Amino acid sequence: MVDSHDNNSPHEVVIVGGGFGGLYAAKALAKANVNVTLIDKRNFHLFQPLLYQVATGTLSPAHISSPLRSLLNKSKNTQVLLGEVNDIDPEAQQVIMDDQLVPYDTLIVATGAKHSYFGKDNWEEFAPGLKTVEDAIQMRRRIFMAFEAAEKETNPEKRRALLTFVIVGGGPTGVELAGAIAELAYQTLKKDFRNIDTSEAEILLLEGMDRILPPFAPELSQTAAASLANLGVTVQTKTLVTNIENDIVTMKVGDEVKHIAAKTVLWAAGVKASAMGKVLAERTGAECDRAGRIIVESDLSIQGHKNIFVVGDLANFSHQNGKPLPGVAPVAKQEGEYVAKLIRKQLQGQTLPQFNYTDQGSLAMIGQNAAVVDLGFMKLKGFFAWLFWLVIHIYFLMEFENKLLVMIQWVSNYITRNRGARLITNQQGSPEAKPVPSQSHYPTPENRLKVNV
Amino acid sequence: MVDSHDNNSPHEVVIVGGGFGGLYAAKALAKANVNVTLIDKRNFHLFQPLLYQVATGTLSPAHISSPLRSLLNKSKNTQVLLGEVNDIDPEAQQVIMDDQLVPYDTLIVATGAKHSYFGKDNWEEFAPGLKTVEDAIQMRRRIFMAFEAAEKETNPEKRRALLTFVIVGGGPTGVELAGAIAELAYQTLKKDFRNIDTSEAEILLLEGMDRILPPFAPELSQTAAASLANLGVTVQTKTLVTNIENDIVTMKVGDEVKHIAAKTVLWAAGVKASAMGKVLAERTGAECDRAGRIIVESDLSIQGHKNIFVVGDLANFSHQNGKPLPGVAPVAKQEGEYVAKLIRKQLQGQTLPQFNYTDQGSLAMIGQNAAVVDLGFMKLKGFFAWLFWLVIHIYFLMEFENKLLVMIQWVSNYITRNRGARLITNQQGSPEAKPVPSQSHYPTPENRLKVNV
Repeated sequence: MVDSHDNNSPHEVVIVGGGFGGLYAAKALAKANVNVTLIDKRNFHLFQPLLYQVATGTLSPAHISSPLRSLLNKSKNTQVLLGEVNDIDPEAQQVIMDDQLVPYDTLIVATGAKHSYFGKDNWEEFAPGLKTVEDAIQMRRRIFMAFEAAEKETNPEKRRALLTFVIVGGGPTGVELAGAIAELAYQTLKKDFRNIDTSEAEILLLEGMDRILPPFAPELSQTAAASLANLGVTVQTKTLVTNIENDIVTMKVGDEVKHIAAKTVLWAAGVKASAMGKVLAERTGAECDRAGRIIVESDLSIQGHKNIFVVGDLANFSHQNGKPLPGVAPVAKQEGEYVAKLIRKQLQGQTLPQFNYTDQGSLAMIGQNAAVVDLGFMKLKGFFAWLFWLVIHIYFLMEFENKLLVMIQWVSNYITRNRGARLITNQQGSPEAKPVPSQSHYPTPENRLKVNV
Repeated sequence: MVDSHDNNSPHEVVIVGGGFGGLYAAKALAKANVNVTLIDKRNFHLFQPLLYQVATGTLSPAHISSPLRSLLNKSKNTQVLLGEVNDIDPEAQQVIMDDQLVPYDTLIVATGAKHSYFGKDNWEEFAPGLKTVEDAIQMRRRIFMAFEAAEKETNPEKRRALLTFVIVGGGPTGVELAGAIAELAYQTLKKDFRNIDTSEAEILLLEGMDRILPPFAPELSQTAAASLANLGVTVQTKTLVTNIENDIVTMKVGDEVKHIAAKTVLWAAGVKASAMGKVLAERTGAECDRAGRIIVESDLSIQGHKNIFVVGDLANFSHQNGKPLPGVAPVAKQEGEYVAKLIRKQLQGQTLPQFNYTDQGSLAMIGQNAAVVDLGFMKLKGFFAWLFWLVIHIYFLMEFENKLLVMIQWVSNYITRNRGARLITNQQGSPEAKPVPSQSHYPTPENRLKVNV
């Protein structure tokens, strides 16, 4: 229960994380009689659903990023703090940052998730995931460098490995990456090289279950697989990756063990809770699920801590049908808005029924004129699904400023079939460009996250 | 003199560097009866005149970068090689790369220039220059991080240093940076912070000569200084920087020595020849000027090496009026095109008169509705100069694909006065975010260039 102060200082709401959950909570509190502090380690909100388009050279990072300060500069009750939260103290009701303590009356934790390699963290070096702008730039560099290296390679076996792209995980991100790389290899880059034929590239999409896009209706999974095959992607279901090392992917298909030499392996297979999950669990005694997500009450608070809420990918909310809600933007957005509303109600001495997610359906882009849309009551495929995907994404991007540009970029790419944003940059940070020095000096994914204040 | 082969294998032209000089040489050879190999360590051509707009959050790197392969994919006689040239062998007529040797009949070297700290290379850590996309991203990070840190800083003196921006060098780049930062501080960011008033930021432009924009007519220098003052920039001429260290800029104004505490110091003061200059001089005995540029013959070849040409910022061409041509895009472009034409003529047994530069004038942007244009026969200032600047840049960008986007971005920024591309990224690479480990492991500017294959 939110405690309305006796004295005159307004109720302090601290939000950790400026993704969909945190941002929409802050927006929904803009006119409430509270002070809001939004803390993020980045100075921008990232529209993650389009990150794969940065990784494959269609969009620039700025197209899908909006400065948090601009997004919230009209909320006079809201301040944005750039920095990392290391710990919280529920007794003292404060959030602990590197350089300051931030007191709260109500805390909303929305720090999201990161990739998970199911305990095989050494795979990350060979198979990067896609969560941050830097991840996307790194993927983009790897993809385009593979073609560049193939152009120079004279050994046919090595050249083949350079032109083999393996995407692990057949969810929406994996499907979208596979489709975009296929379009790159078979269309965009076709005339750009002299020694290789980019249409000889092999693109493999691996999925452990018996079909790709498991959250969709089975018929849409089939459509998506057919569309991918049509684009030139080899879809392999019931395939478990058992090792990734030195450009060799080892997998089990049924009882058979297979090895594939691939210079570019992209990880779209699993996520786990961000580091704040562990901190919260330790400090509040909250229960976690296997992915490290906090199991929340029906109002998204933590058991025994009515003034601490968890929203978005970090929350496991299973009150609706026993299954946790998926880690997607609409869930985070609705959860953030629910908590904001609950805080406003509680300050007026009222309450709200439990959180209830309204499923608006699932979408996945496959390629030009091909997508799948599952709205439950309606299923779309092909051109109409593709158009629907575009309209929905433009619509949501429009809530941010300036994003007409994305639409124009898409129209231009559609006409020219070109992709302008294929710069290979920041090579000094990438393992393939430079021998890794002693472990302590080289930024590991873990301390890289830390440094990105 | 270009030697036309006796046998049937076509004449091999190797171009090192894909900037304006190299790219336009390659384009002008597209239909010649030669094989062209363009070698660059980056996979894109960079439209450097707009790099300051990336550094100040207006444009994204991809807006001003075009993949070299796309730009040249219609030239069937041209191949692009990604990699670094380490050495040349004029006897064997080959270019030496990390992993291969490339034979040439004619060599065009167009590797450009880098910043010069006049021997004070230790200043670079505190005062980065602006030559590459990574430089621009680093500048952008420093500028926006300064405001972020000021928002958190409680010590008024430190806060003042965080809000002080010093730009060293009053040429076009320095003027454009100063104007853009003034617009950022006094307009774009005005409502974004809660603890600081960004309009208290101090922006200093330092110039050693007695006026900014020395290549322009004196009246335009005055106009530019007045426009900058109007925007809030303090312009200090006759000011020599004598030291930059630990966020303190030391300068001599007349006989007076002054110290200014500034967290953000940007270098726009001088350039020197790229590393290939030294290699060329050693291998061919070519004479260099003080900036390391190769003194070329009147046909842009190297004395005694009629089949090696130098174009662009790396060349010192003084045959017109005794003064070397400036290091700007139009010079590089015209030189590249001249050499291409000369090669074509020589293969037909003909020749060409000496290279002759057509000066098309100088432009510098100051800010919204303010620029200066010196066409010699005509001088523009204010709104019309600003419009002229936009039209000229759009016109030249149009030669590349897809760059309508820049225009739309500008129109949108003009209307909203917002700047969308203000992401702070890649912090792990920046000295302010992480203590610099032992020198050998940390990429110095020198080995960073090397690694950027």
